[in-house]
Amino acid sequence: MIRCGVVGATGYTGIELIKILLRHSGVNLTELTTRKTQPFSVRTLVPGLPEDIGLQVRPFSFDRIKRNVDVAFLCLPHTEAMSTAARLRRAGKTVIDLSADFRIKSPNVYEKWYQKKHRAVHLLKEAVYGLPELNRKHIQKADLIANPGCYPTGAILGIAPLLGKDLIERESIIIDSKSGVSGAGRKPTTATQFCEVNENFYAYRVNRHQHTPEIEQVLSDVAGNGVRVNFVPHLLPVQRGILSTIYLDLKKKVRANVIKEAYKEAYAAEPFVRVRGENVFPALADVRGTNFCDIGYNVDLRAGRVIVITAIDNLIKGASGQAVQNMNIRMGFEEDEGLRTW
Amino acid sequence: MIRCGVVGATGYTGIELIKILLRHSGVNLTELTTRKTQPFSVRTLVPGLPEDIGLQVRPFSFDRIKRNVDVAFLCLPHTEAMSTAARLRRAGKTVIDLSADFRIKSPNVYEKWYQKKHRAVHLLKEAVYGLPELNRKHIQKADLIANPGCYPTGAILGIAPLLGKDLIERESIIIDSKSGVSGAGRKPTTATQFCEVNENFYAYRVNRHQHTPEIEQVLSDVAGNGVRVNFVPHLLPVQRGILSTIYLDLKKKVRANVIKEAYKEAYAAEPFVRVRGENVFPALADVRGTNFCDIGYNVDLRAGRVIVITAIDNLIKGASGQAVQNMNIRMGFEEDEGLRTW
Amino acid sequence: MIRCGVVGATGYTGIELIKILLRHSGVNLTELTTRKTQPFSVRTLVPGLPEDIGLQVRPFSFDRIKRNVDVAFLCLPHTEAMSTAARLRRAGKTVIDLSADFRIKSPNVYEKWYQKKHRAVHLLKEAVYGLPELNRKHIQKADLIANPGCYPTGAILGIAPLLGKDLIERESIIIDSKSGVSGAGRKPTTATQFCEVNENFYAYRVNRHQHTPEIEQVLSDVAGNGVRVNFVPHLLPVQRGILSTIYLDLKKKVRANVIKEAYKEAYAAEPFVRVRGENVFPALADVRGTNFCDIGYNVDLRAGRVIVITAIDNLIKGASGQAVQNMNIRMGFEEDEGLRTW
Amino acid sequence: MIRCGVVGATGYTGIELIKILLRHSGVNLTELTTRKTQPFSVRTLVPGLPEDIGLQVRPFSFDRIKRNVDVAFLCLPHTEAMSTAARLRRAGKTVIDLSADFRIKSPNVYEKWYQKKHRAVHLLKEAVYGLPELNRKHIQKADLIANPGCYPTGAILGIAPLLGKDLIERESIIIDSKSGVSGAGRKPTTATQFCEVNENFYAYRVNRHQHTPEIEQVLSDVAGNGVRVNFVPHLLPVQRGILSTIYLDLKKKVRANVIKEAYKEAYAAEPFVRVRGENVFPALADVRGTNFCDIGYNVDLRAGRVIVITAIDNLIKGASGQAVQNMNIRMGFEEDEGLRTW
Repeated sequence: MIRCGVVGATGYTGIELIKILLRHSGVNLTELTTRKTQPFSVRTLVPGLPEDIGLQVRPFSFDRIKRNVDVAFLCLPHTEAMSTAARLRRAGKTVIDLSADFRIKSPNVYEKWYQKKHRAVHLLKEAVYGLPELNRKHIQKADLIANPGCYPTGAILGIAPLLGKDLIERESIIIDSKSGVSGAGRKPTTATQFCEVNENFYAYRVNRHQHTPEIEQVLSDVAGNGVRVNFVPHLLPVQRGILSTIYLDLKKKVRANVIKEAYKEAYAAEPFVRVRGENVFPALADVRGTNFCDIGYNVDLRAGRVIVITAIDNLIKGASGQAVQNMNIRMGFEEDEGLRTW
Repeated sequence: MIRCGVVGATGYTGIELIKILLRHSGVNLTELTTRKTQPFSVRTLVPGLPEDIGLQVRPFSFDRIKRNVDVAFLCLPHTEAMSTAARLRRAGKTVIDLSADFRIKSPNVYEKWYQKKHRAVHLLKEAVYGLPELNRKHIQKADLIANPGCYPTGAILGIAPLLGKDLIERESIIIDSKSGVSGAGRKPTTATQFCEVNENFYAYRVNRHQHTPEIEQVLSDVAGNGVRVNFVPHLLPVQRGILSTIYLDLKKKVRANVIKEAYKEAYAAEPFVRVRGENVFPALADVRGTNFCDIGYNVDLRAGRVIVITAIDNLIKGASGQAVQNMNIRMGFEEDEGLRTW
Repeated sequence: MIRCGVVGATGYTGIELIKILLRHSGVNLTELTTRKTQPFSVRTLVPGLPEDIGLQVRPFSFDRIKRNVDVAFLCLPHTEAMSTAARLRRAGKTVIDLSADFRIKSPNVYEKWYQKKHRAVHLLKEAVYGLPELNRKHIQKADLIANPGCYPTGAILGIAPLLGKDLIERESIIIDSKSGVSGAGRKPTTATQFCEVNENFYAYRVNRHQHTPEIEQVLSDVAGNGVRVNFVPHLLPVQRGILSTIYLDLKKKVRANVIKEAYKEAYAAEPFVRVRGENVFPALADVRGTNFCDIGYNVDLRAGRVIVITAIDNLIKGASGQAVQNMNIRMGFEEDEGLRTW
Repeated sequence: MIRCGVVGATGYTGIELIKILLRHSGVNLTELTTRKTQPFSVRTLVPGLPEDIGLQVRPFSFDRIKRNVDVAFLCLPHTEAMSTAARLRRAGKTVIDLSADFRIKSPNVYEKWYQKKHRAVHLLKEAVYGLPELNRKHIQKADLIANPGCYPTGAILGIAPLLGKDLIERESIIIDSKSGVSGAGRKPTTATQFCEVNENFYAYRVNRHQHTPEIEQVLSDVAGNGVRVNFVPHLLPVQRGILSTIYLDLKKKVRANVIKEAYKEAYAAEPFVRVRGENVFPALADVRGTNFCDIGYNVDLRAGRVIVITAIDNLIKGASGQAVQNMNIRMGFEEDEGLRTW
């Protein structure tokens, strides 16, 4: 049994991680930490747990984690995770970081978008970007896994197979994403109050969202060349889920069948990507509560464009589910252990 | 034209007041105040207003209000309104206070439920409880109107006609209320975040809500005798509206027809109470955006009980609409001026 | 392995049953039926299932069920289930009926409330009301289990311990229930359209809901005497969950501690009832997706009343979860097998 | 006073029209029709109306309309409106048709997208497309006004000023639209049930929506040349509102300032278009309940693209409000009469 800890257990991704890890047959969930000063039962966070579960959420103790944890999941805010990650790496722990702190390879780019100097630059090279569909082999040996952002997960999985096969124009990428409110985290803000979100909908940080450089970095690696995108996120009045509608100009003479083949080749063996096919489009309800990324597409030969729609649960494939998928790959479990949910 | 000001214009009741007063043919809306330090356009609060409206929301200035306002609506938090009310009364202004500060006649009861010493006790006698259906004559001459709470409005209007006619047992009153989220105000809290409210529902402050003594005081006046109630509020995942399901034991030998007559006598001439009749029950959608209180009832002679259901829009009949109704009564306007909305 | 079939798999309770049974370690889910004429994949109903699941939903075939099923769950509409149940009983199958057809012991009462003659009167005596907390011993040997209604489950579990100990006045029972929309089933109606339900709330069938006689029958058995209740259901703008606020007059001299003891005695050993304690009230979110019934209460000695609040997921403890709990009891599985969800 | 009738008063656009026309100072609302066989009070449709309003909704009678109506608004389903329109035109009435039947100039295109032969081809030339911002002069003299579709209104208003000035590439137009559920009409369907819509989101009729040819026809007229678009509608879990995110490739050397000027020139004098400015994006809440179309945009010179976001209330500017705006223009009222709402 692998001993796991969740550092920062009280946010939405922390709570989702707890749920998954408690269903995992190969894991002992030994440590859950909070900033609160008093310990409390994990049932405060996950009320559906049985009454006799003894697990407590406690103030962070480096000693306890050192002693009791093999794999540490960090669910800390961006710019706060890096110090803890560095400390845990020094103690020899395998770290899966759900923050953005180790996703961006360039400290300058990180600093520009996250408004903070990177304090663990030496670890950036070691860190592996934890998107299994692209990086499974590196993840198998990684001890610092930068778990992808929620928007990048859905966007990259839709684009990478076509970009990697050179089927689309690099400079044409438009990503129109719509996310549920849990993506904004659990800290109370005016913008995420019920009366502000319900019966409302809007775009935010148009071309300025901090996930933009993450998407561009990964897609540039895929293309072997600099890729820039237009990324427009919107806030949906739902609790969870991200649906991305992606517009891509086809290279000349690309036929619908080639698109189909590209997706098939990329994902036929993937446990958590489901290509729904041409003109079969996913709904958020199809992936809610699951670690799936569903993909549908429409090829418009007249316009020379392919429209790709991807759907994920932002808290699962977009965060905690993917983190466990990464752990499964790293630790040699079945890749879907703990993630068979419906 | 009467010159009106809204002190505390940026909360949900302030915003609703602005909307109503700008539709009112007899009013100039001259002053809107905020705690922010910089003025800003009223269109920030009410985006549907025409672009050329010049009205600004400004930091509170006693001098400006003294100079430019005849009637001041106070939309300040409980325990903060009383000092401003006292100051404005000294300046001879007519004050309509939407807070709880002048609703409770006994300073001791106020202190017990609102955890704060009353700092304007001398005004409690002058203050008139602004429920037009019970107090219209006093409101006509009042210069300090305590606008009723949202829950009390719906509850009292349902119960008073039956209690006043001695048709129900005084000690049997049960009020099961369900309120939309705007009732909690606009200040961000964890409890009112979208992800906490949506797809959720629960009771809160069972038998401990601060509107309990207000309901009991008014009903005791109606009964001519001490009345205690069981009041259980619940939080609905909707933006606005309160529906109260009220259970009352009938006195012996009361027939359905007597109930009907009691409501008819009480409300036939009322512009904003609609008795829907026996076994015709209101929905929140029926009163949304209006100043109506709709009432339906079921007489269960076997059980010796009458079930009364009332519905209001908590921001209109439960707050700002009733405040304007009170101003209309006080200033001699048509009672529904500014309040003909559908 | 027990072979299970779901007759009427395409409604909300059928879908929920499929999800639970596919998680159950002791069950083979062999038959799923539909009124549609063509078979289709179970993944149409439960999109989170893995792609390689072979299971099909097929037109009803008595022969297939006879051959392939040990336990048949009936998710048919009220008044339609009884004929199928009779046929399956004749074939020796264990039947768990989620409709109302075998809940009411008196054919006359059934006919009055469901507007249809009972066509399997001979089975009413055999049928066991499947509320494990009251009837576990009978369920262990039953071959026709009448799975309780959603409203009755939450109401009865809140009231029975107090009524059984003679702590409350039999004629005082008021049940104010609020249900999510899935309780109305999946058939499209105007009343359950998004635009009619969202931002709305209302009571319906006040004192006339067909679950009233079911509640009264079971509570009368508990009391050893005729019990009548006031039952007022309301429609909540949420997908699932029922919260019932129950008002009960205490018999003289009953103290809070006695209430606590009564619940403890009734439920301390129950796997799916969680007594949250005095003044700790459940929210729908606490039980969503689980088979738990959570109970909180407030004792108001001044008013001589106890307020009990119960929460369930209407599709799980209120329907399909309880059906599987009943099957577990009948077939000798761990009672929570398939039902450990959070 | 102009005498108005609403044919097909019971759908969402009919109800919205009633609300607006009853606020209009220059209109008598004389006729409301329904397919039901019995007349009923208009308060069934608009519960916020005062109790003493006498207006009835009645079965359609051509004679009554002939006698009592000057302007007839048709809120009938597509393919059903054309016959009634023809009949009313023969009787000399001014007809404002909210269906799609007279929007498409080519009977062949109409037939292809609406699957029905056009039965009033002779009127297609007479019909004026009722988008005031493009066609005000023609509307002033029109007696058959084809009121625009909801999606086309928001899309065209965002694109036309840039296309008309030749600032964007004609073949680059992508319209990613998100609509509230009322756009689907009031007829019950499975897809629009609360449990199917809530907590869900998806694209539908990708590149196949029947509003596509309408958008293309109008934009082609603006461009003086054939325009094709990619149009992807999505269903939002809100009752009303459409937000369209529009992606347009800039022609070479177009600077941000030119975009600004184009919008200013087009809309500075328009009463119902509000250009919010560069990087100021509208939310649905900004236009809810109003006849405004709000527009914001972002110019990305690096990518050579402008992102335009428009928001409307689909039932007002997208249907009934625009219909009244058209009537105001035609009848010589102030253009915003009846439409000053906030």
